[in-house]
Amino acid sequence: MASIRLARTTLRDAQRTSSQRLFSSTAISMEQKYRSERDTFGELQVPADRYWGAQTQRSLQNFDIGGPAERLPPPLIKAFGVLKKAASIVNAGYGLDPKVGEAIQKAADDVISGKLHDHFPLVVFQTGSGTQSNMNVNEVISNRAIEILGGELGSKKPVHPNDHVNMSQSSNDTFPTAMHVAAVTEIRESLIPALTELRDALDNKAQQFESIIKIGRTHLQDATPLTLGQEFSGYVQQVTNGIARIEATLPRLSLLAQGGTAVGTGLNTKKGFDVKVAAEITKLTGIEFKTAPNKFEALAAHDALVEAHGALNTIACSLMKIANDIRYLGSGPRCGLGELSLPENEPGSSIMPGKVNPTQCEALTMVAAQVLGNQTTVSVAGASGQFELNVFKPVIIKNVLQSIRLLADGSRSFTKNCVVGIQANEKRISTLLNESLMLATILNSHLGYDNVAKCAKKAHKEGTTLKEATVALGFLTPEEFDQKVRPELMLHPDEV
Amino acid sequence: MASIRLARTTLRDAQRTSSQRLFSSTAISMEQKYRSERDTFGELQVPADRYWGAQTQRSLQNFDIGGPAERLPPPLIKAFGVLKKAASIVNAGYGLDPKVGEAIQKAADDVISGKLHDHFPLVVFQTGSGTQSNMNVNEVISNRAIEILGGELGSKKPVHPNDHVNMSQSSNDTFPTAMHVAAVTEIRESLIPALTELRDALDNKAQQFESIIKIGRTHLQDATPLTLGQEFSGYVQQVTNGIARIEATLPRLSLLAQGGTAVGTGLNTKKGFDVKVAAEITKLTGIEFKTAPNKFEALAAHDALVEAHGALNTIACSLMKIANDIRYLGSGPRCGLGELSLPENEPGSSIMPGKVNPTQCEALTMVAAQVLGNQTTVSVAGASGQFELNVFKPVIIKNVLQSIRLLADGSRSFTKNCVVGIQANEKRISTLLNESLMLATILNSHLGYDNVAKCAKKAHKEGTTLKEATVALGFLTPEEFDQKVRPELMLHPDEV
Amino acid sequence: MASIRLARTTLRDAQRTSSQRLFSSTAISMEQKYRSERDTFGELQVPADRYWGAQTQRSLQNFDIGGPAERLPPPLIKAFGVLKKAASIVNAGYGLDPKVGEAIQKAADDVISGKLHDHFPLVVFQTGSGTQSNMNVNEVISNRAIEILGGELGSKKPVHPNDHVNMSQSSNDTFPTAMHVAAVTEIRESLIPALTELRDALDNKAQQFESIIKIGRTHLQDATPLTLGQEFSGYVQQVTNGIARIEATLPRLSLLAQGGTAVGTGLNTKKGFDVKVAAEITKLTGIEFKTAPNKFEALAAHDALVEAHGALNTIACSLMKIANDIRYLGSGPRCGLGELSLPENEPGSSIMPGKVNPTQCEALTMVAAQVLGNQTTVSVAGASGQFELNVFKPVIIKNVLQSIRLLADGSRSFTKNCVVGIQANEKRISTLLNESLMLATILNSHLGYDNVAKCAKKAHKEGTTLKEATVALGFLTPEEFDQKVRPELMLHPDEV
Amino acid sequence: MASIRLARTTLRDAQRTSSQRLFSSTAISMEQKYRSERDTFGELQVPADRYWGAQTQRSLQNFDIGGPAERLPPPLIKAFGVLKKAASIVNAGYGLDPKVGEAIQKAADDVISGKLHDHFPLVVFQTGSGTQSNMNVNEVISNRAIEILGGELGSKKPVHPNDHVNMSQSSNDTFPTAMHVAAVTEIRESLIPALTELRDALDNKAQQFESIIKIGRTHLQDATPLTLGQEFSGYVQQVTNGIARIEATLPRLSLLAQGGTAVGTGLNTKKGFDVKVAAEITKLTGIEFKTAPNKFEALAAHDALVEAHGALNTIACSLMKIANDIRYLGSGPRCGLGELSLPENEPGSSIMPGKVNPTQCEALTMVAAQVLGNQTTVSVAGASGQFELNVFKPVIIKNVLQSIRLLADGSRSFTKNCVVGIQANEKRISTLLNESLMLATILNSHLGYDNVAKCAKKAHKEGTTLKEATVALGFLTPEEFDQKVRPELMLHPDEV
Repeated sequence: MASIRLARTTLRDAQRTSSQRLFSSTAISMEQKYRSERDTFGELQVPADRYWGAQTQRSLQNFDIGGPAERLPPPLIKAFGVLKKAASIVNAGYGLDPKVGEAIQKAADDVISGKLHDHFPLVVFQTGSGTQSNMNVNEVISNRAIEILGGELGSKKPVHPNDHVNMSQSSNDTFPTAMHVAAVTEIRESLIPALTELRDALDNKAQQFESIIKIGRTHLQDATPLTLGQEFSGYVQQVTNGIARIEATLPRLSLLAQGGTAVGTGLNTKKGFDVKVAAEITKLTGIEFKTAPNKFEALAAHDALVEAHGALNTIACSLMKIANDIRYLGSGPRCGLGELSLPENEPGSSIMPGKVNPTQCEALTMVAAQVLGNQTTVSVAGASGQFELNVFKPVIIKNVLQSIRLLADGSRSFTKNCVVGIQANEKRISTLLNESLMLATILNSHLGYDNVAKCAKKAHKEGTTLKEATVALGFLTPEEFDQKVRPELMLHPDEV
Repeated sequence: MASIRLARTTLRDAQRTSSQRLFSSTAISMEQKYRSERDTFGELQVPADRYWGAQTQRSLQNFDIGGPAERLPPPLIKAFGVLKKAASIVNAGYGLDPKVGEAIQKAADDVISGKLHDHFPLVVFQTGSGTQSNMNVNEVISNRAIEILGGELGSKKPVHPNDHVNMSQSSNDTFPTAMHVAAVTEIRESLIPALTELRDALDNKAQQFESIIKIGRTHLQDATPLTLGQEFSGYVQQVTNGIARIEATLPRLSLLAQGGTAVGTGLNTKKGFDVKVAAEITKLTGIEFKTAPNKFEALAAHDALVEAHGALNTIACSLMKIANDIRYLGSGPRCGLGELSLPENEPGSSIMPGKVNPTQCEALTMVAAQVLGNQTTVSVAGASGQFELNVFKPVIIKNVLQSIRLLADGSRSFTKNCVVGIQANEKRISTLLNESLMLATILNSHLGYDNVAKCAKKAHKEGTTLKEATVALGFLTPEEFDQKVRPELMLHPDEV
Repeated sequence: MASIRLARTTLRDAQRTSSQRLFSSTAISMEQKYRSERDTFGELQVPADRYWGAQTQRSLQNFDIGGPAERLPPPLIKAFGVLKKAASIVNAGYGLDPKVGEAIQKAADDVISGKLHDHFPLVVFQTGSGTQSNMNVNEVISNRAIEILGGELGSKKPVHPNDHVNMSQSSNDTFPTAMHVAAVTEIRESLIPALTELRDALDNKAQQFESIIKIGRTHLQDATPLTLGQEFSGYVQQVTNGIARIEATLPRLSLLAQGGTAVGTGLNTKKGFDVKVAAEITKLTGIEFKTAPNKFEALAAHDALVEAHGALNTIACSLMKIANDIRYLGSGPRCGLGELSLPENEPGSSIMPGKVNPTQCEALTMVAAQVLGNQTTVSVAGASGQFELNVFKPVIIKNVLQSIRLLADGSRSFTKNCVVGIQANEKRISTLLNESLMLATILNSHLGYDNVAKCAKKAHKEGTTLKEATVALGFLTPEEFDQKVRPELMLHPDEV
Repeated sequence: MASIRLARTTLRDAQRTSSQRLFSSTAISMEQKYRSERDTFGELQVPADRYWGAQTQRSLQNFDIGGPAERLPPPLIKAFGVLKKAASIVNAGYGLDPKVGEAIQKAADDVISGKLHDHFPLVVFQTGSGTQSNMNVNEVISNRAIEILGGELGSKKPVHPNDHVNMSQSSNDTFPTAMHVAAVTEIRESLIPALTELRDALDNKAQQFESIIKIGRTHLQDATPLTLGQEFSGYVQQVTNGIARIEATLPRLSLLAQGGTAVGTGLNTKKGFDVKVAAEITKLTGIEFKTAPNKFEALAAHDALVEAHGALNTIACSLMKIANDIRYLGSGPRCGLGELSLPENEPGSSIMPGKVNPTQCEALTMVAAQVLGNQTTVSVAGASGQFELNVFKPVIIKNVLQSIRLLADGSRSFTKNCVVGIQANEKRISTLLNESLMLATILNSHLGYDNVAKCAKKAHKEGTTLKEATVALGFLTPEEFDQKVRPELMLHPDEV
C-alpha cells in the first residue's frame, strides 16, 4: 500500500515541478529496488539503496512539503552524528555492548563525514519536535552499523535504532542538542572566521586610505571632511562588534538539553549522563559545551537560538549599511559619487567601459534582507513553545543555520570579490572635497561667521569655488586661503 | 585560471560541508570534461555536459553563497522559458530568422518541461537584477538551440544568447516579467487549488459536525455553547476569504514589465512589443497577463509582489489559527481537551495507545512561521528599489515562491493527512458540555439572575453539575431542568 | 482600598517618569474628589469629574502598562460611539425605552465628537478582548445619559451600562465591530485622500518635468536616459496602485461582527439585529458596511485587518522607495547627485548655504520603518486567535490605526512640505547627461559596436566626453555627433 | 504668517480628531499669548508659556505627523538633560562662563526632573538625526537658564542655545548619546528590576509547587509526569536567562558617541572632551558609561540598539511562552485543563462563578506581539544608515524605549496581578495524573513491553484507568499496582 501511495506522490510531484525530481532522492524510478522495514505501525517499502527505515519513509510520504530545497541542513545532520557518537561512548559506561557501541560510532563517523548525506531526505516541515529526523538518524546509523557488523539491513539486529542508537535519549532532548551543537559549530568555524576576514580586509583598506581626505556626508548632504580611512574604520568597528555580539550569545547557546529525555526530568537516563555527554561532545568537537542547568527550559524554549539570531540580525544590519555605503560611493562612473572603484568581476555592460555593477554589494544586501526575515520566523517560532515542548524546532534551526551560512558565505564572497579590490578614486575625491563649501566652517575663527556666510552664499549662488568667492570678496588672498583652509586640520578634536 | 579557481572553490566547499556536494551540479569531479565559453571578459572553462555559458560560470565562481539549497526555484526558470518562447514568437514578426526562432522555441520548451533543471545552478545571492540568471537562460537556450540546429556548443552560432534569445529584451525587464509569470502561475495552479481542497474538506467536516453541540471557549474559558459545525464554519470562512484575498492581488500581479528594457523607456524594442509579448504569454499559459501601464514602476518597484505576499501572510495567519485550534481540540488523550480525534499517521509513542501527535498541525504552523518571516524579507527587499531598478529581485521572488509552495503543499498535506480524517469525540464533547456551568445563562429568564448565580456558585464550589445544584436548591425538578436547559436553544439569535 | 492602591500606583509612576504624569488623567492630585461606583466585584472610588465607572477604574489599576502613550486611539473610541448609537437605534425596535434610547444616542454623539476624550483612559495592554474598553464606553455613555436625564452618576438609573447601552451586545462582537468601523473610516477619510493628494502632487511634477532628459541609473550606475517626468511617473504609478491596493481589502474589512455576541452564535440577540446594525452604521457614517456572513470567523480571527495591513505595508514600501530616491536625487549641494532641489523648511546648517537636509524624506522613511514593524505585530497577533475568540484585539487595532495615521499624516506632510516645492536643477541634470558615456549606445547602428566601444573606452580612460573622444578618433565631426547623439531618441521604443 | 499656519494646522487637527487636541500642548486656544523667537530662517511666534524656541516651533509646524501619541518618550528627554548637564560641567574646564554653566546645569536639572515635560512637544517623525529635538532641548534649557538669570526669554542672552548649551556638541553626537543613556538607564533601573521581581515570584511558585506531581505534555499530548515546581522552574530559567541576555548587550550599549560632533572626527571639540563627558555622565547617573572607541561607527550605525533589541525580543518570546502556558493551565473552569487557578482581578462574567479570564496573560502576550514587531522596525531602521549618519534615530529609540517600558510594566503587572496569586488545583492535577495512561511506561521493566501495551490499550479502549485494566487483565493486584506505579519515581534520572 505504501509503495502505491508513494508512487502517486511521486507522480503528482513529477507533474507539478518535474524539474525538481532531478534533485530528489524520493523520486524513485520504476526499476527502483526495495526492502521491507517496519515500525509499530507496520511494514512498508524502503528504497533498497538507502539506510533509512520505516519511520523516515513514513515521514517522506506524510510530509510532501516543499521538496528537496526544504531538507534539514547538513550541519544539523552532522551535529546529530556527533551526538550519537558521544551518547554511544557514554552509554558504553552504562552497559551498552562494546561491539554495538563501536559499530554505532563508526556509522556515526560516516554521518559526520557527510558521505551519507543522501540518506537524510526529510524536510523541515515535519513533526515539530524533529522526532522523524532523530529517527532518521537512528535508522541510518543502525542500518549502517548492522552493515558494518555483517547483519541484514532492516533486521534491527544487532543494532536497534531505538534500543541502542537512541539509548537513554528522546527526540525531545536530542533534537535541541543537535540544534545547539550545529549552531555553535557553524558560528565558530564558519561565521566568525568569515567575519574576521572581512574585518581584516576592511581594516587593510582603512589603513591604505588613511591619508585620503574626503567630504563627509550627513543626511546625504555635504558635511565636514574626514579621511576615507576614518570612514572605513567605522565599518571595521561594526564588524568587530558583530563578532563580539555573536560571541556574547554563546554562553547560553553552548548549553545542551541532552539528558532531559521526554519532558525534562531525565526519566530513563542515568544520573550523570547529561554531564558526560556534554563532555564527550566537547571532546569530539573541540568546542566547549556544557549540560543545561535546567532541562525543562531546554526542551520547551529555544530562547538561546532566538537570542543568537538577534546577534545574526544585528550583523546583517551592519553588513547592509556597509554594502550600501560602498555601492553608493562606487556609483558612477560619471553621474554618481564615484569616490571608489569596485572590482569588475563580470561584464556590467556590453558597451559601457566603467560600468561596474556592484554585484557583490547586491548579493550581500539580499543576504541581509533574508536574515531580517529569518529573525521574524525564529522569533515567532521561538515564542510558540507549549508546556514541556516547543514544536517549532526544525523551522527554528533551519532559519538559524541558513542565516549563519548566508552571512558567512556572503561575507567571504564580499571580502574576496569586492573589498580587497576596492580602489580609491583620489582625483574624484579631491575634486569633490575642493568644490565643497563645507570647508568654510574653518574660516569662522578668522573672518567671523557673517563674512564666511557671505563667501559661501556667493559661491553657492554663482557656482564657483569657495576660494574664488572668498578672494573675489577680498577677504583673503589665494595664498592666505590655501594656508588657512586646510582640511587636514578638520579631522580631529583640537588640542587643548 | 578559471578552472583552477573553481577547483579551489569546490575543495573548500567539500571540506566545509562535504555532504552538500552530493546535490551540487557545481561539484565537478576530477575527470569532468570541459569546453571553452567566452564573454566580453574573456574565456573560461565550462563543464562539457552543461549548456550554460561563460556568464553563468562566472556567477557560479563569484557567488559561492549558500550552496544548492539557495538556487532560484524551478517555477521561475519555467517562467523564463515561457517568456523566452513568447519573445521569440513576437520577434519573428520583427525580423528574427524563423529557423533561429523555431530552435529557440524548442529549446524554451525544454526549459519549460523542467528537463534542463540541472543547467540552472545559480543561487539567489547574485546580482540583484537577476542578470546572471537571465543570461543563464539565454546561454542554455542558445546552446540547446544550437545543438538542435546541429551547431557547436559555445560558438554562439547560429543562435546567439544576446542577439537572438535576448532580442529586444534586457535583464531588467525579463527578470521581473518572469517573477510575475511564476508567481501568478503558482498561485493559480498550485495554491488556489490546494486552498480550495482544504476549504472543501473543512466544509465537509462542518456539515458532518453540524448537530454536535459543544462548549464554546473565549479567553480559553468556558463560554456559551455552539455546534462543532459552527466552529468549523469559521475555519471554512477563513480559507474562503484567503482565496479571495490572494485573488484580489492578481490584477496588479498580472501586469508585466516586459518591453521596458533597461530603464523602463523601452529603448531597443519596437512599439507594440510589450503588448504582444503579454498576449503571447497569455496564450502559452492560459492565464491572462497584461503589459504594465508604467514600465518605470515595473522595473524599479516590486510592490505587486509585496502586496501579494501580504495576502500570503494573511493566509498563513489563518492556517496558524486553524491548526492551533485543531491540535488543542485534539489534545489528550486523557489530560487535554480531547474533543477531536486526529488521524494517526505515524507512531506517537511506542507504548502509549492514543498518543497521536498532531504532526500535520505542527508542520502547518511551522509553514506559517516561515511565511511570516518571508513577509519581512519581501518587505525590506521591496522597499529597497533605487532610481530605475530594484536590485533585490532574486531574494524577493525566492521568498514569494517559497511561501506559495509551502502554503500549497502544507495545505494539501494537512487536508489529506489530517482534516479528512478528523473525528469528533462526541461522548467527550457531551460530557464537557454537561459539566459546564455556562448553560446557566439560559435560566436567567426563568429563575432571575440572583437565583441562577446561587445555583452556579453552589455547583462550582461543590464540584457538582449545575443540574444537581439547581435541584438541590429546590429551584427546579430534574425534569424541569432538562426541559429548560437545552443547549440547542442557545445556538442562534432569538426569533423576533 | 482601591483609592490607596491607586495612590500607590500613581506615586510609583510619578517617581519613575514623573514627566508622564502631566498627560495622565490617572494622576490624581491629593485634592481630587471621588464618587463610588460598583460592579459585581464591589465598590471602588472613581474621580468625580469622570464619567467612567467601576470596570474602567479597575482596569486602570490592574493594567499600569505603558502609560498614556499607550491609550487606545481616538478613532476607535469614535467608532464605538457610532456603534453604540446605531445599536440603540436598532434596539428601539426591539423594546428599548425610547427615552433611554434617545439619551444614549445623545451621549454617543458626545463620544463621537471627541469631547469626552479624557474619559477614555484605558491602554492597549488590557484584556485581549477589549472588554474593559467596551465597558468604558458603556459606563461613560450610561453616566452621560443619566446626566442628560437628570439622574445621579453611578446610579446606573435610568440608563444601565449593561442592560441598556450594551443591550444585545457582547464585548466580543462590539470590539471587532468598532475595529472595522474605525479602520475603514480612517482609510477612507484620511489615508486615501492623503495618498490622492500625494499622487496628484507627484503627477504635477511628472508633467512639469516631462521634457527634462536625464541620465538613468540602474545598480546605481549610469544607464540609458529617461526624462525626469518618466522617473516621477513611476512614483505616480506606485501611489496610484497603493490606493487600489488598500481599496481591494475593503470588501472584507467592511464586514461587521456585530450580532455574534459572545461566541458567534448570536445568543441574546434578535434575528435581524446584525443586519440592521450594519445598515444603521452605514447610515451614520455614510460608508457602506455589511454584516459578516460568518460571525464565528469575525470574532475568532482578524484576518481582514491583517490583510489590510498587508496593503498598508506595501504602501510603506512604495513611500520608502520614493522618499529614498528623492533624497538621493537631492543630495549635494556640491558632492551629491544634485539633480533636484528640495524645499528648505528649516535651517540645515548655520553656515552652509544650500545645505538642505531632506527632513521630510527622513520623516517619511521613518514612518515606513514603523509600518514594516507594525506588520509583524499585526501578523503575530492576528495568527493568535484561540477557539471562539482572538484576544489580541487591542494591539491589532492600535497598530493598524497607527499605520493608517502615520501613512496619512506622513504623506500629507511630505506632499505639502516637500513634493510641491521640488525643483529640477536642469543645468546639473544636463551636465551629467552630457558627461555620461551611456549615450554611446545610440551610435551602435552608425559606427558598429567595436568602434563605439573604442570611443567610450578612450573617453573613460582620459576623462573626456564621449563627443571629444569620438571626434578625436575621427569617427564623426562634432556636428555629426550632435546630430546623431540625441538623447530624445532614446526615451521610447522604436516606431515599427 | 507662522501663527496663521499654526492656526490652520490646529484647525485641521481639531476637525480630524478633535479629541486628541485635549492632550496636545500644541493646541493653542485663541487667547494664547505668544512671544517672538528667531533662528537663521527668521522670526516666528511661540506660545508665551513655553520655553521652546524657533526651531522647535518650526518642527511642530512642519511635522504634523501622528500627534501627541508619537512624541519622543520622556526617558530620552531626561537623558538629554543629563547629557547637557554633563557637557556643561566639562565645558567649564574649557572656558564656559561659570555663571552661564551653573544656570545651564540648573535648567538641565529641571529637564531631568520631568517637570518641563510639556516643553518637549516634538514627535518621532521629524528629521532623522533628531536635530530638532536636540535644538528643543537647547532652546528650553537656554530659555530656562535665561529665566533663572533674570534675562528675557528668546533673547538668547546670556545663555545661547547653540553657543552655550550645545557647546562642543552636534545633534549628530548628542542624539545618539542620549539614546544610549536613556536605553541603558531604563534597562537597568526599570526592566531588570521588573524581570527580577518576576523571576523571584515564579521561583517562589516553583518552590511552593515542588511536590505537586502532574502530567507532562508534549505535542499537547499526555506525556510522562513532572512536578508543577519543575514546570515553573523552566520559566524561572527563562527569565533568569533573559536578564543575562540584556546584560550581555550592555558593554556595547554603554558606549557613547559624544565627542564625535558632526561626522565623527570630533571637529570643534577639544581633545579629551569625549572621555570627560562619559565620566561625568557616569557620575550623574551612577551607571558606568564609556566613550565609544570609534565615533564614526557611533554616529552612522545604531547596531548596539539593534543588538539590545534582539535581547528584548528574546525576552518577549520567553514571556509569550510563559503567559501562554499559564493561561492554558488555568483554562476552564470545567472544560479546560484547570490545573491552575489564576487570581480573579475583575469580573469575568456576570453570572459564571469561576470564569476568570486570564487578562494579565493577555496583556503580556500583547506586549510580546508589540515587541516582536518593534524588532522589525528597529532592524529596518538600524540597517539604513548612510555614510556618516544614520537618520532613523528617533524611530529607533522610540521603539527601543517602548519595548523596554512595555516589558518592564507588563512583567510587573503580570507578577503583581497574576503570578503571586496563582494557586495549584491539586485535586484536578491529581485526577488528571491518575487518569493518564502514560504512567504505564514505568511498568515496562516489570511486565514487559507487550503486556504493558495490552493494559494501556484496554484502558484506552474502555475508558478505564490503567490500574483497572491492569488488574482486570490479572497482571497485578491493586496493591501491587499502587506499589509499582509511583509517579514520584519518574521525576529524575535513575541513580547509577
